[in-house]
Amino acid sequence: MIGKVIEYIDAHRNEYVDRLKDFLRIKSISTDPAVKAETRKAGEWVLKLLKDAGLKTEMIETPGHPSVFAHADGGKGPTVLVYGHYDVQPTGDESLWKSPPFEPTVRDGSLFARGSADDKGQAACHLFAIEAWMKAAGRLPGPVKVLIEGEEEISSPNLETVIRSNREKLACDYIVLSDTSKFNKTIPAITYGTKGLVYKEITLYGPKQDLHSGSFGGTVTNPGNALAHIIASMKDPVTNRVLIPGFYDDVLEMDDDEKGKMLGLPFDELKFREDVGVNMTNGEHGYNTVERKWVRPTLDVNGILCGFTGQGGSTIIPSKAMAKVSMRLVPNMNPRKIYQAFDETVHLLAPQGVRIEIKTFGCAAPYMCPLSSPAMKAAAAAVESGYGVAPAFIREGGSLPILPMFKEVLGAESIMMGFCDPNCNAHGPNEFFDLDDLHKGIRSAAQFLEKMAKG
Amino acid sequence: MIGKVIEYIDAHRNEYVDRLKDFLRIKSISTDPAVKAETRKAGEWVLKLLKDAGLKTEMIETPGHPSVFAHADGGKGPTVLVYGHYDVQPTGDESLWKSPPFEPTVRDGSLFARGSADDKGQAACHLFAIEAWMKAAGRLPGPVKVLIEGEEEISSPNLETVIRSNREKLACDYIVLSDTSKFNKTIPAITYGTKGLVYKEITLYGPKQDLHSGSFGGTVTNPGNALAHIIASMKDPVTNRVLIPGFYDDVLEMDDDEKGKMLGLPFDELKFREDVGVNMTNGEHGYNTVERKWVRPTLDVNGILCGFTGQGGSTIIPSKAMAKVSMRLVPNMNPRKIYQAFDETVHLLAPQGVRIEIKTFGCAAPYMCPLSSPAMKAAAAAVESGYGVAPAFIREGGSLPILPMFKEVLGAESIMMGFCDPNCNAHGPNEFFDLDDLHKGIRSAAQFLEKMAKG
Repeated sequence: MIGKVIEYIDAHRNEYVDRLKDFLRIKSISTDPAVKAETRKAGEWVLKLLKDAGLKTEMIETPGHPSVFAHADGGKGPTVLVYGHYDVQPTGDESLWKSPPFEPTVRDGSLFARGSADDKGQAACHLFAIEAWMKAAGRLPGPVKVLIEGEEEISSPNLETVIRSNREKLACDYIVLSDTSKFNKTIPAITYGTKGLVYKEITLYGPKQDLHSGSFGGTVTNPGNALAHIIASMKDPVTNRVLIPGFYDDVLEMDDDEKGKMLGLPFDELKFREDVGVNMTNGEHGYNTVERKWVRPTLDVNGILCGFTGQGGSTIIPSKAMAKVSMRLVPNMNPRKIYQAFDETVHLLAPQGVRIEIKTFGCAAPYMCPLSSPAMKAAAAAVESGYGVAPAFIREGGSLPILPMFKEVLGAESIMMGFCDPNCNAHGPNEFFDLDDLHKGIRSAAQFLEKMAKG
Repeated sequence: MIGKVIEYIDAHRNEYVDRLKDFLRIKSISTDPAVKAETRKAGEWVLKLLKDAGLKTEMIETPGHPSVFAHADGGKGPTVLVYGHYDVQPTGDESLWKSPPFEPTVRDGSLFARGSADDKGQAACHLFAIEAWMKAAGRLPGPVKVLIEGEEEISSPNLETVIRSNREKLACDYIVLSDTSKFNKTIPAITYGTKGLVYKEITLYGPKQDLHSGSFGGTVTNPGNALAHIIASMKDPVTNRVLIPGFYDDVLEMDDDEKGKMLGLPFDELKFREDVGVNMTNGEHGYNTVERKWVRPTLDVNGILCGFTGQGGSTIIPSKAMAKVSMRLVPNMNPRKIYQAFDETVHLLAPQGVRIEIKTFGCAAPYMCPLSSPAMKAAAAAVESGYGVAPAFIREGGSLPILPMFKEVLGAESIMMGFCDPNCNAHGPNEFFDLDDLHKGIRSAAQFLEKMAKG
């Protein structure tokens, strides 16, 4: 049957491009209340596609944008839940776009539009694959469910409620999603781990108002100096190790197999430096750039604000100082534990004479899917078959808090198949999706369903 | 003769208040180009007073606001140069003033107006004293010169040129000024030392643009963390000693006499904490609050700006980080030496992977007038006679760069007689000058000329 399905996909290659363009024309910017109705239309586009393909569909309403749910019985085998999102990032400065963000345009074999890669284009690979199975084979190879939400770009505020209230309906053995990228332009990737995140804002309060640094300097604790001391004391300046007690206690070290695979990847250090605009990389001693990106926890200042920051000199002792500091966590670090250790460390380090306030803007667990999972093997075989190139197994420095949530609520592991270019400008101007990746992504997604059903 | 002069001053007590009000009505805000002509009028008011009193007067023009110069031969004895300024600070938010800043208003025995203390009111004490000598005694007791400038509140950009180009004309043995405050509400003060200042702005440049903290965290030097490390490494967190090499090398320790006098002052630590709004003071170990304020060098953050500082969390690695850091210096520290040591320390401390830029917004020497100077003794006797209370000898945490400049160019020491309340709101809303201080200030200034002439 898979032969017919792939034939069908190949025959409709150009049609998929036109239909994806229709999807991309819909301004589904979830952050923008002005396009709320338009955003819903993108969900309706997804729902219609799945309904027309013969699946049972349902719009799950939320206080924000709705989620599209669909399912089809497909005989035996493990149930696969396809996850994706139909909402997109804001466009940013439209003058930086070579073609308008909501007028999809093909240039040099790539489709340029907001959402072309993140995530309409990549989600569409799975939708078109499901459709191809239904059209070419009359059925799906195994049980398939689909959940396409509309609030991913605003941190999925209602997704957990949707999942928890529809636990039975969404019950599945594996989740598959394409919201990550390839390893590089030519090598597709399966991402098997994401980092967790603890994001903190520290404010230190000193004197009741800014003071003259001549009349008062040296007599009271300066919140700016105190903040610098706290931040600096959290990281060893030589080894770049985080000094929060217990920070590394639960870090899962790679086994030789994983490490061998990772260090065997053709990572281009010089290109990385050039892309970032630094003449040297720097990080935790004893690890290379790939390990630092993917498997080592980090602590970074995201912002600091304190006192006088205008032109020239103003001689004040600032009355307060604020820093945003975030930590990326790796398996098996516990975000609640790190959260508390961070707060305790701030309190321990703060000099006398300042009052401390700590806010939290993020507390997400890391995620890792076992490389030995049967679905992982099915995904690898599917992508290799779809692309003609074996995928790289990679991890990701960013966080996808929905994955540990899926694991917790549905008990299912997530498989991340990356079809888009790592430099596809997701979130930036001139986002694109290579048309070849669209085609190969659909083929890979169709193969994945086949290989999952065969077990 | 002094008896007649004091009698004259006492008889004109109320008239001085009315005339000071006229002076205060003139909007001489030197920072504000819109009132440039008005600012000059304040200088003309001073010039007319001195001319009418019988002194030879001259307006010394500058590219900015002019300086008023006057002189009168007064027989033998050392030449005294009275320094002051006729320009004032901006008003700030006028809604915070109980009466309009340029409509001088008496409440509870104090005159409220911008400049009432800083420095029109205090400078007027000397002007009225000179006038009283001329009117009541027909002459000054010794040679007197006057220099009242119009740019003190904008850091006297043209004063050094005025002094250097008029070195002969301004030649004097001592300078007297009243631009500092009393020790507290009831005890007048003679300030014999001011701190120097080195003001720096450090900017660290890292990646060419802000980076995603997930994809890039831990792989490049974060300018925010690096800046915190540099600032924190400059001060011992336990002893609060500055760790810049050589920082304390030239610090002049107090002798037992000075220390005894200083520690004998009725400094109210609890009131200080309350005024500042902290529940504890903190500073260099081994010194108390008064010593930290007046005789110990300091290093303080004045401002920091880096990365994302809005509401909530944005997960970026900032591309740069900026801090303003200033140091207050005490005799005999050399600002050029500290300036260089600071820059060298920043370069030594900066981790690899950031580019450093350092700007300088201030480099002023500390100043100290020997307590044993005859003019100091004359000033003490004059203030005690004018007030009926012996003045406190104090030092000042702020900087007056003109004093070391006077010393260098004219070879003369400066005597700072403080008549206004230390909480007089100079630079803030509701600035005031106690009418009793105005009267006693005029008497003290008249006595000072007498005692200087007598030697």
